[in-house]
Amino acid sequence: MKTEQAGFVEHITPKSEDFSRWYTDVVLKAELADYAPVRGCMVIRPHGFAIWENIQRLLDGRFKATGHKNAYFPLLIPESLLRKESEHVEGFAPEVAWVTRGGQEELAERLVVRPTSETIICSMYSRWIKSWRDLPVLINQWCNVLRWEKTTRPFLRTTEFLWQEGHTAHRTAEEAEQEALRMLDVYRDFATNDLAIPVVWGQKTESEKFAGALRTYCIEALMTDGRALQAGTSHNLGQNFARVFDITFLDEDNRLKHVWQTSWGVSTRLIGALVMVHGDERGLALPPAVAPIQVVIVPIMPPKDKEAVLARAREIAARLSGRFRVHLDDREEYSPGWKFNDWELRGVPLRMEIGPRDLKAGQVMLARRHSGEKESVSQEGIEETVARVLDEIQKGLYERARRFRDENTHDVDTYDEFQSIASSALPGFIRAGWCGSAECEAAIKAETGATIRCIPFEDAGKGTCVRCGKDGGRIVYFAKAY
Amino acid sequence: MKTEQAGFVEHITPKSEDFSRWYTDVVLKAELADYAPVRGCMVIRPHGFAIWENIQRLLDGRFKATGHKNAYFPLLIPESLLRKESEHVEGFAPEVAWVTRGGQEELAERLVVRPTSETIICSMYSRWIKSWRDLPVLINQWCNVLRWEKTTRPFLRTTEFLWQEGHTAHRTAEEAEQEALRMLDVYRDFATNDLAIPVVWGQKTESEKFAGALRTYCIEALMTDGRALQAGTSHNLGQNFARVFDITFLDEDNRLKHVWQTSWGVSTRLIGALVMVHGDERGLALPPAVAPIQVVIVPIMPPKDKEAVLARAREIAARLSGRFRVHLDDREEYSPGWKFNDWELRGVPLRMEIGPRDLKAGQVMLARRHSGEKESVSQEGIEETVARVLDEIQKGLYERARRFRDENTHDVDTYDEFQSIASSALPGFIRAGWCGSAECEAAIKAETGATIRCIPFEDAGKGTCVRCGKDGGRIVYFAKAY
Repeated sequence: MKTEQAGFVEHITPKSEDFSRWYTDVVLKAELADYAPVRGCMVIRPHGFAIWENIQRLLDGRFKATGHKNAYFPLLIPESLLRKESEHVEGFAPEVAWVTRGGQEELAERLVVRPTSETIICSMYSRWIKSWRDLPVLINQWCNVLRWEKTTRPFLRTTEFLWQEGHTAHRTAEEAEQEALRMLDVYRDFATNDLAIPVVWGQKTESEKFAGALRTYCIEALMTDGRALQAGTSHNLGQNFARVFDITFLDEDNRLKHVWQTSWGVSTRLIGALVMVHGDERGLALPPAVAPIQVVIVPIMPPKDKEAVLARAREIAARLSGRFRVHLDDREEYSPGWKFNDWELRGVPLRMEIGPRDLKAGQVMLARRHSGEKESVSQEGIEETVARVLDEIQKGLYERARRFRDENTHDVDTYDEFQSIASSALPGFIRAGWCGSAECEAAIKAETGATIRCIPFEDAGKGTCVRCGKDGGRIVYFAKAY
Repeated sequence: MKTEQAGFVEHITPKSEDFSRWYTDVVLKAELADYAPVRGCMVIRPHGFAIWENIQRLLDGRFKATGHKNAYFPLLIPESLLRKESEHVEGFAPEVAWVTRGGQEELAERLVVRPTSETIICSMYSRWIKSWRDLPVLINQWCNVLRWEKTTRPFLRTTEFLWQEGHTAHRTAEEAEQEALRMLDVYRDFATNDLAIPVVWGQKTESEKFAGALRTYCIEALMTDGRALQAGTSHNLGQNFARVFDITFLDEDNRLKHVWQTSWGVSTRLIGALVMVHGDERGLALPPAVAPIQVVIVPIMPPKDKEAVLARAREIAARLSGRFRVHLDDREEYSPGWKFNDWELRGVPLRMEIGPRDLKAGQVMLARRHSGEKESVSQEGIEETVARVLDEIQKGLYERARRFRDENTHDVDTYDEFQSIASSALPGFIRAGWCGSAECEAAIKAETGATIRCIPFEDAGKGTCVRCGKDGGRIVYFAKAY
């Protein structure tokens, strides 16, 4: 596809001019994804999927370190199961795909393609869980889910997407609450340290919580267009599903009790967040922790020095490849300048240039994707140098995003101020008081387009409702959101 | 679920008495899988899924080492795409699930839940591939597929299953043929060295080849009930799909040409093969390479020595855990004997017992799951000892399976002999001559239930057709198959 790229690299819509077209251009031209010939579906191309594989590896390690095991539950859910939990079905029935024919026969009962798996998993837990000895059950599943969305955008909102969904069952309410909060913290830690995306976290309001949950917790990130993106959710399901699906256990005190449950998930949407948080006019800028290629080596090869330069480039690539994800771009049909653009578009965090002059000087040129900063460094101890620089890039990306997030988080007292910020070109997070009523929440949404992203855990004090002026509320995070 | 296990362990149907019930008992009671409340679907439980994760890791490493990248294509395929390749649609249309409703609307065009992804992937390749520079395209996808099977059995044949499907596009017929054979060899190597399952390999007959392929290659394994299981297939698709989906590239000679393609796959069916090849009356016996737990440590803890024994067991577990997948079973509510049975049922290849006497002697007792062999070994250098023993177990399982396969492979000249072996309790592989005609193939299948599993690559010489007596045919592998 290189041949097309040559043209493409120049043609990304300026971010400043049209953020949403810029986003789509980057996704398509960096070959993260492509549109599929199925309504609202995308194809995740190798470069995009390699990011997802890194996300999976880094999250799965954290899940297993906290005692979780993976399993796999069926894609198709009988309608009767979906309908068991009333809030749940209300929330999901309108947006599911229905399988009505199998092979040659009309089905007696329609099947939904899972939009999420609580119902099918609960039906199994009710069989598996008998005694307090069977608890806790800590299971996660990596899979595809389908939601029949009206408007779709690659990674952010697609009919089908990939995700992980954790589903746990516990002996006590306390354990379930701890689990829900533990996994929220796993997400926060992962977003911060691997995705280099700063987040705010807290609890969702009643109107924004998961259908069927007692409480929903979330992490929220700020995109560079000033809109918020929900990056992960963790639900305390209480005993709602346990009652409906009759998941009981004989406790040590010989009494039969319902289990307490949680579920939590993140999706390929995180790839969209990476684009919108770190990307720029030249395309993607990936944090080293999740970049498919961390270092690309581009040899500068004038004919007479070609062999010597290539030999050294190969030697350095070999030295680095044990510790880093390295690619040597030794293609001859493209100029170094063209390669620079191409790898910048794809977001490779560090570029290493090596030419005849570097050969003599025993040096290489390092160029950082996110800052454009270049420095000549010695070939000696290059492994340590690259490790240090990648670490600086990872931190640099986070710091830049954190600064942006902080500069675009506004503490607001008056509704006028609220409205003017919400209607500005770069709204960002608005921290303001809320009385706790669904009425004010709905009115604010209707009048400004801003929704409550989360109620922070730590009491930010003074909570005079920015709309009705009632006192004794909470300070919460508002934003226009994806 | 432990509490139930106690009862379960005793109640596996004897393999000798009823192989098929024995298989189901092992799958359910070792908690590899469970039946789902959806027709023909199963739940892959953590112990079964952990085997799949090891299979994925070991295969994915081989795929990447041979230059392949992972991607993800949509689950749903428009009916019109499926219908483009006539043989292909004939092969799959009868056994697909149909999505006819999305959200609130009836769909204008029905969608099939992918039974395999050639059509959707080809529709993308026709967009992506423009020039010889874009070739080869070497993409693999790990995903779920659906086939509306009439009769189903956990892992062996289920409505939904997990698999990987590789889809490649090449510049020349030779490259495509090489790729199809290279991936068949990857499967053969994986089955042999990691699954410890010996296989025969070769080409499928016209009647058994993949719908739409030019040639299908396969590896076939022999289960301990004397039936064959197709364990992996690799297809040379020629230009059939390229013509239908118009996948062309401008070659260096400036002429527009159709690409040459392959596809290849293995599925969760391999877990069923592990059960049927290595399992015995006591349950599963897993090869160390894919066992979720390679070493289980069972401390023998009479009250007065409990602390001392546990302390040493923990220390040894810590020493081993860096190199092996180790589990210390320190549960107090179960007796050592009960634990032995439980871990044997689950197929853990090596059990380490440590009690007061071992403590004094500075030894531990090692018990091999597949042979029952026990030996006392020194705690000193236990890492090396365990590495050696696990290696012996891996080889031992393979050797036992190879011997069984060889002892149950019969060279047959007469049709009488063929029929008597095919109708015996333990048919196995039958190596016999075949004239190459579809008539004889069909007649043999109708009369004996045996099908041609593969035509071996190396000419096994003398090919007088075992049914029609015509000369100049090939020696092929027949078997009754799953």
